[in-house]
Amino acid sequence: MAEAPQSVANENAPRIVTAAMLVIGNEILSGRTKDANLAWIAEQLAETGIRLMEARIVPDIEAAIIKAVNELRAAYDYVFTSGGIGPTHDDITADSVARAFGVGIDVDPRAHAILDAHYPPGELTPARLRMARVPFGAELIENPVSKAPGFRIGNVHVMAGVPVIFREMFKSLRPSLVGGDPLLSRAVGCPLPEGKIAEPLGALQRRYAGIDIGSYPFFRPGGRPGTTIVFRGVQRAELDRAVDEFKALVRSFGEEPFEAETI
Amino acid sequence: MAEAPQSVANENAPRIVTAAMLVIGNEILSGRTKDANLAWIAEQLAETGIRLMEARIVPDIEAAIIKAVNELRAAYDYVFTSGGIGPTHDDITADSVARAFGVGIDVDPRAHAILDAHYPPGELTPARLRMARVPFGAELIENPVSKAPGFRIGNVHVMAGVPVIFREMFKSLRPSLVGGDPLLSRAVGCPLPEGKIAEPLGALQRRYAGIDIGSYPFFRPGGRPGTTIVFRGVQRAELDRAVDEFKALVRSFGEEPFEAETI
Repeated sequence: MAEAPQSVANENAPRIVTAAMLVIGNEILSGRTKDANLAWIAEQLAETGIRLMEARIVPDIEAAIIKAVNELRAAYDYVFTSGGIGPTHDDITADSVARAFGVGIDVDPRAHAILDAHYPPGELTPARLRMARVPFGAELIENPVSKAPGFRIGNVHVMAGVPVIFREMFKSLRPSLVGGDPLLSRAVGCPLPEGKIAEPLGALQRRYAGIDIGSYPFFRPGGRPGTTIVFRGVQRAELDRAVDEFKALVRSFGEEPFEAETI
Repeated sequence: MAEAPQSVANENAPRIVTAAMLVIGNEILSGRTKDANLAWIAEQLAETGIRLMEARIVPDIEAAIIKAVNELRAAYDYVFTSGGIGPTHDDITADSVARAFGVGIDVDPRAHAILDAHYPPGELTPARLRMARVPFGAELIENPVSKAPGFRIGNVHVMAGVPVIFREMFKSLRPSLVGGDPLLSRAVGCPLPEGKIAEPLGALQRRYAGIDIGSYPFFRPGGRPGTTIVFRGVQRAELDRAVDEFKALVRSFGEEPFEAETI
């Protein structure tokens, strides 16, 4: 079902596969609903060897959806969208994605059959049948929760916003994803503020160009301020060496480093 | 401190002022840290008469930050950023924003004085002094929590990612924001699934072009599925009429509507 990733790499370079997430819905931008899908899919993609490089949140406005879909699908290997595929007038994602691809859209016979089998006689209203509208040429994404399917067209995967449905849809499509070299990560905490370790940490980053070193301060109520350092890279030995060097650095300040959760 | 909004409106049309939020940081895209600022600022902006129209999350990569800043500042009246203004090597927001604007950047004397007064003698390390780097021509945004300031350049407001600091910085700059006509909202719930009310709801939306009507399903454990309808608009009387019509619609199905929280 998946197309080959757009990235091209030589035999020695790490194989990087990228993705973007597009959250569609006024309710997220108004603050009424807190997005619960982004952090979840980020972890899922990381496990699949796919790097989430950008996320966007746009309102239920056709022009905004089309622009975002076209920019993101051109820039990344995979795009995942959430929201706007229900039965009401403000659910315009499917039609907007069809326009972004310049293809037609109509009730899909496969999706129609799924909804026919799901609803009791007389309950498949014209409004609910809108949920069977799928752009021409798209593949369906199974929805084991409430049946109305998502779909994939090109490298864009269109899913529901309700988290329980979003997650099940993603699990349905996950076997079709082709990941790159997995991004390994380790995290080490220390009871030192960022400002104390920033200079030698910067020097460490310069020595390990293949490792992405992120610094995140933490504040414990009543405790000393500390910092968690996250190391990410595709080569285990290099990653471990960078971590060991950082631990030695912390000890040189008279403090004890500790392993922390990367996620 | 704020410039006039870019939107121009005639005397009768509602005065619409727009904003975008740019979240900067690998830790949000990896799922390690859940963004806590977006929903908060969305509500704050709504109260100020400013509509949050788009949000983006980008990694700590200079080209990605520059591209997003330049696209968003051209498209919206206000841009707010979070993250990447600490003392470590991966804090590249200030330098990236300077490049986006095509201006230089250096340690700002005003910011330097603030940090000098804050840190005990000898503690203002070169790394910490990086937090005083401000693009030429920018105004400082006060940080009552940890002192290192944010800044505003053009219509872009650069703030810290740590939520307690982000919020205090926003409160510091809030008096400078010029909002448009406030977006009024009401929400009404009913114990009817979206599919039952979608058609008459769509007709209601067509009759009230000035009101934005959003439909959000809810599922209560063990209860019947229901829907919350959110009405938004700038004219109170029109908003109330649309709500009254929707309540009558719910009663025509033999159910009782109930007022719900808009946020």
